[in-house]
Amino acid sequence: MSDALFDVLRKVTTATITTMLLKKGIRRCWMNGPKPLVPHGKRLVGSAFTLRFVPAREDLATPESWAKPISTRGAIEEMPEGCIAVADAMGIVSAGIFGDILTMRMVKRNVAALVTDGAVRDKAGVLASKLPVWCAGVAAPASVNGLTFVGWQEPIGCGGCAVFPGDVIVCDDDGAVVIPQNLVAFVAEEGAEHERMETWIVGEVERGVKLPGLYPMNEGTKARYEAAKNKR
Amino acid sequence: MSDALFDVLRKVTTATITTMLLKKGIRRCWMNGPKPLVPHGKRLVGSAFTLRFVPAREDLATPESWAKPISTRGAIEEMPEGCIAVADAMGIVSAGIFGDILTMRMVKRNVAALVTDGAVRDKAGVLASKLPVWCAGVAAPASVNGLTFVGWQEPIGCGGCAVFPGDVIVCDDDGAVVIPQNLVAFVAEEGAEHERMETWIVGEVERGVKLPGLYPMNEGTKARYEAAKNKR
Amino acid sequence: MSDALFDVLRKVTTATITTMLLKKGIRRCWMNGPKPLVPHGKRLVGSAFTLRFVPAREDLATPESWAKPISTRGAIEEMPEGCIAVADAMGIVSAGIFGDILTMRMVKRNVAALVTDGAVRDKAGVLASKLPVWCAGVAAPASVNGLTFVGWQEPIGCGGCAVFPGDVIVCDDDGAVVIPQNLVAFVAEEGAEHERMETWIVGEVERGVKLPGLYPMNEGTKARYEAAKNKR
Amino acid sequence: MSDALFDVLRKVTTATITTMLLKKGIRRCWMNGPKPLVPHGKRLVGSAFTLRFVPAREDLATPESWAKPISTRGAIEEMPEGCIAVADAMGIVSAGIFGDILTMRMVKRNVAALVTDGAVRDKAGVLASKLPVWCAGVAAPASVNGLTFVGWQEPIGCGGCAVFPGDVIVCDDDGAVVIPQNLVAFVAEEGAEHERMETWIVGEVERGVKLPGLYPMNEGTKARYEAAKNKR
Amino acid sequence: MSDALFDVLRKVTTATITTMLLKKGIRRCWMNGPKPLVPHGKRLVGSAFTLRFVPAREDLATPESWAKPISTRGAIEEMPEGCIAVADAMGIVSAGIFGDILTMRMVKRNVAALVTDGAVRDKAGVLASKLPVWCAGVAAPASVNGLTFVGWQEPIGCGGCAVFPGDVIVCDDDGAVVIPQNLVAFVAEEGAEHERMETWIVGEVERGVKLPGLYPMNEGTKARYEAAKNKR
Amino acid sequence: MSDALFDVLRKVTTATITTMLLKKGIRRCWMNGPKPLVPHGKRLVGSAFTLRFVPAREDLATPESWAKPISTRGAIEEMPEGCIAVADAMGIVSAGIFGDILTMRMVKRNVAALVTDGAVRDKAGVLASKLPVWCAGVAAPASVNGLTFVGWQEPIGCGGCAVFPGDVIVCDDDGAVVIPQNLVAFVAEEGAEHERMETWIVGEVERGVKLPGLYPMNEGTKARYEAAKNKR
Repeated sequence: MSDALFDVLRKVTTATITTMLLKKGIRRCWMNGPKPLVPHGKRLVGSAFTLRFVPAREDLATPESWAKPISTRGAIEEMPEGCIAVADAMGIVSAGIFGDILTMRMVKRNVAALVTDGAVRDKAGVLASKLPVWCAGVAAPASVNGLTFVGWQEPIGCGGCAVFPGDVIVCDDDGAVVIPQNLVAFVAEEGAEHERMETWIVGEVERGVKLPGLYPMNEGTKARYEAAKNKR
Repeated sequence: MSDALFDVLRKVTTATITTMLLKKGIRRCWMNGPKPLVPHGKRLVGSAFTLRFVPAREDLATPESWAKPISTRGAIEEMPEGCIAVADAMGIVSAGIFGDILTMRMVKRNVAALVTDGAVRDKAGVLASKLPVWCAGVAAPASVNGLTFVGWQEPIGCGGCAVFPGDVIVCDDDGAVVIPQNLVAFVAEEGAEHERMETWIVGEVERGVKLPGLYPMNEGTKARYEAAKNKR
Repeated sequence: MSDALFDVLRKVTTATITTMLLKKGIRRCWMNGPKPLVPHGKRLVGSAFTLRFVPAREDLATPESWAKPISTRGAIEEMPEGCIAVADAMGIVSAGIFGDILTMRMVKRNVAALVTDGAVRDKAGVLASKLPVWCAGVAAPASVNGLTFVGWQEPIGCGGCAVFPGDVIVCDDDGAVVIPQNLVAFVAEEGAEHERMETWIVGEVERGVKLPGLYPMNEGTKARYEAAKNKR
Repeated sequence: MSDALFDVLRKVTTATITTMLLKKGIRRCWMNGPKPLVPHGKRLVGSAFTLRFVPAREDLATPESWAKPISTRGAIEEMPEGCIAVADAMGIVSAGIFGDILTMRMVKRNVAALVTDGAVRDKAGVLASKLPVWCAGVAAPASVNGLTFVGWQEPIGCGGCAVFPGDVIVCDDDGAVVIPQNLVAFVAEEGAEHERMETWIVGEVERGVKLPGLYPMNEGTKARYEAAKNKR
Repeated sequence: MSDALFDVLRKVTTATITTMLLKKGIRRCWMNGPKPLVPHGKRLVGSAFTLRFVPAREDLATPESWAKPISTRGAIEEMPEGCIAVADAMGIVSAGIFGDILTMRMVKRNVAALVTDGAVRDKAGVLASKLPVWCAGVAAPASVNGLTFVGWQEPIGCGGCAVFPGDVIVCDDDGAVVIPQNLVAFVAEEGAEHERMETWIVGEVERGVKLPGLYPMNEGTKARYEAAKNKR
Repeated sequence: MSDALFDVLRKVTTATITTMLLKKGIRRCWMNGPKPLVPHGKRLVGSAFTLRFVPAREDLATPESWAKPISTRGAIEEMPEGCIAVADAMGIVSAGIFGDILTMRMVKRNVAALVTDGAVRDKAGVLASKLPVWCAGVAAPASVNGLTFVGWQEPIGCGGCAVFPGDVIVCDDDGAVVIPQNLVAFVAEEGAEHERMETWIVGEVERGVKLPGLYPMNEGTKARYEAAKNKR
């Protein structure tokens, strides 16, 4: 995945990305659950590094398990620079998958963001760590209270979407979307043009133009838009 | 509906309105779902202009459908100045019914507010458009991802309430309530007096008066209140 | 319960408290539902004063019922200074259990906080009253719209936890936890040491130490930590 | 409560009872959750004997707790002949409040039925015990897995309804309804007449009469009905 | 819609119909909610006659409303012979949309079936009326307890599907599916062939053939299947 | 796992098994969701063979995917005789993970049962295939409508429980429980004794003995029970 594509995607809203994917018949790309822990207006783009949890079982999900080779700690040390960690917490928001010590370490490793359909804990500390987080809640208990960590870089579900290692994740104030790897170039190119078009339409609305015929554009509007593009 | 009644209602909290409606046996008047997209402390009042969605079907809910006569675009152009648009999204929060271009146009048409038990998209743009919004979420996908628009100015459900075109909507930081048309005068008048009474009670609590006998008022307290009113 | 223990607990995060209780086999101690009405970064500690609601029945849950001896008003007048009121609203968020007049009175009585798995109403007024509130929502309707108040200082459920009068409640930005009375000393002591340890670990992460072996600590790390403690 | 009233109620469907209560403004009388464990077509009537659970806490909800004075065992021994036990399980269906040994003992004590918004366990044994049960599910784990028993003959919630000791419970294949004590005579008398009327209407529908004007009856139909009643 | 197509559809399972619609990109065609009130093994086919409810409001949803021109009674008298009534109850299962008197009348009018994402009441009587019913529950209260009827033959949602008047409904023990009008011929023809193919595959599985290559069929299997078809 | 242990477990109810596991601190062992497709009174025991799904993505979850090496078809051919297939469908009940052709093949392969927190399709055919099924629903659409199959014999969640390949599954009319591999001998032995004890208690209840002191047994009762055991 070229850096150039990522630079383009940083200027395409998640809203527009979902519309581009709909052109390819894909409706299930926006994760229902993850929201910005603090809305900050920034858009982040990265390759998905997946984490997988199953429900807790009292004999397995213990503080001792954190020292095992298959642990969230081990997973963090495998995360490549610039990736976006996506954690399948099965929508469980009564246990925080990560707290401040783990998000601090992720910042040290230059992880771009954490996305989960679960919760984080130590909210104050997580905010202080400056790791951008999209999550479905905040909870005091540790992951082992409700979850057993079972592995990384496997296919997962997150917020009702399938996420595969290497899919591209984009997140902004509207939430997080997943772009299948083979559609990234398509989405970036069409998305950039779509943003140009919507910017022009916004100007038209500001001028007082009515919506029918403008958005979506009819033939006359398309001609006016093309003319405007050529002028620039 | 006289403007004077609306001016009175602007000073009556939604909390008080629900209590006034309870006097008439109406418990189902507060919409469970719509919350201020940004809490801002303002109270808005307007006649309901209803919008109705049913679930998406892939052959109908397409970007192309936005160009049809029955479309959210067409509905917006029918909205009268000062109305509050109320959209029945069946509580679905995984698709945004409106984005920034549509809310910009609503502002141009002097629509007072948008209320929905669904979500909006393009959050940053919607905020920039300055349309006051009460909604149940924010989502990147367009309405067609989950919803099919079928008409306007029909009876709808929103957040568990029945809303008929012409009912009066009041919304503030406690959410949105619907007042049946024939009860608006009653609610405004009794509500205004109720607010006066609660303001006096607040003063009493500040003076250290205990709650029993004060709120609700017993006979002695009522006499004191009446005396205080006459003094003013 | 000694004030000294409470002072210690004020410096122990709810996250740490849940981990200490897990050592005793207790997983169900964090209430799923109550969140700070406004995140403010403060941690509050107090003995639980419980309030119990059952669902509304139209002949019982009326504004008139507020004048009865068994009423939320009567309960508030029984609350001891410094307590934390915990209200079992059965997770119903479509009616506000308390509004601003009641929270003002609680402040007058020096109640430390209100915790509920239900909603409050008159949000603007409740914020103005300065009572710290952890709740699951905001709603305009009064309690009688959905709830019947039946008593205080009984065992209750709140957010999926059992709460008994006299249990200790701690709440911060991660939510609210309940500590069984007989475990308070244990939690305070072990929790304080745990916080010291995590502070040291945070320093290590800042220095770039990897997580495995550090958190949780292996034998080598423990030795380094003990040495550091002795140095101080 | 006279036995005669109960005999009348045995011939009034729960559907009709809800309609009679609606005449008194009561909509919240049907419990959403309890269903017949096996549909059998019988209707049962009895005074409510209430049982109350709160969520489990691992230090309290243990098999050992079953030997405590406040236990489901103790409660069963207090149940009067002919009562209907109504258990508030907070809608939790992942733990069975009672198994076969307990339902056998209830049959020995001539308890008329068990109604709960929770689950039972040992389904095969419960069926063999012949206790009529209305519940929301079947689960293998014992109550202590998810619930702590805290008392009996207190006001409770069950399936979204308030139930007070001594309220009258009627259950049939449409579920379970609660009749406030002071409305039992009204419901029995009006209900019996309503059943007579509906029986006549059924005959009319069988003859091919259209619904409008028949159900509800207009003036002409009422006259025909009165004439038919007098003939009998 | 020709009767012949309906005869073909009567032999195509709802499972197969969903697979045929998936070929056209339609995934949202099975209603999540309606189940056979009594599983009986029969498959029913008919044109959709839609009914629409919104939530109850206490001043509107009264027994008196049943005498109004826009009422469920009026709707039933408009139902054409052989249609399948599909009622949008917004998934509310705490009020029965229809009871036995109404289902008796529907049988008199030769309505083929009732499908709803809500509940019916008077279960015993509804069963006695012999109207085939697919519903999401059984409840004692009448529709007015939770619902207001607002019209018929409008676009509706039912169990997460859009249903338009004139769409074709097929229901069997797997539930109810909706076929868009313009795809009925396609679904009937392809579905019938699909059933033939699956019947042959069933025979192969009975003979002990492994699944890979058989289902779905690879080229070799397809050749064998075509040969078998020609033999018949 | 010896066959003898399995024979013992076949006589231990799932209810008793959960109580035995509680002795080891394990509360999360009963799957919330799977119920017998038809209650039949039989108890089945087998080693877990796990199947894992993630949500559907339109480009992946297609009928074509069934021909891929990683497919439910491939998984079935790997199932060892006597195993119980446990499928993690994330609780999604709007798509059937398996239909009749697949369950027929499982019967051919001597699979003991299918357990899932999702749904099956082709109910009539699945019943005809005679494979014992515990599931959370029945739905017409194929798995690809809502699910993507990603692998087998991995750790999974099912009905809120962690299930690892090789754990032992027991299912009867109370649902399905999972026994961690290293606790199977403990559960079988203690469970068998527990069943003996409960059988004796049932006899006591039949004789009219009161519950307190009997269940759980106090010292006197224990002595009587031991005496009775010795007599046999």
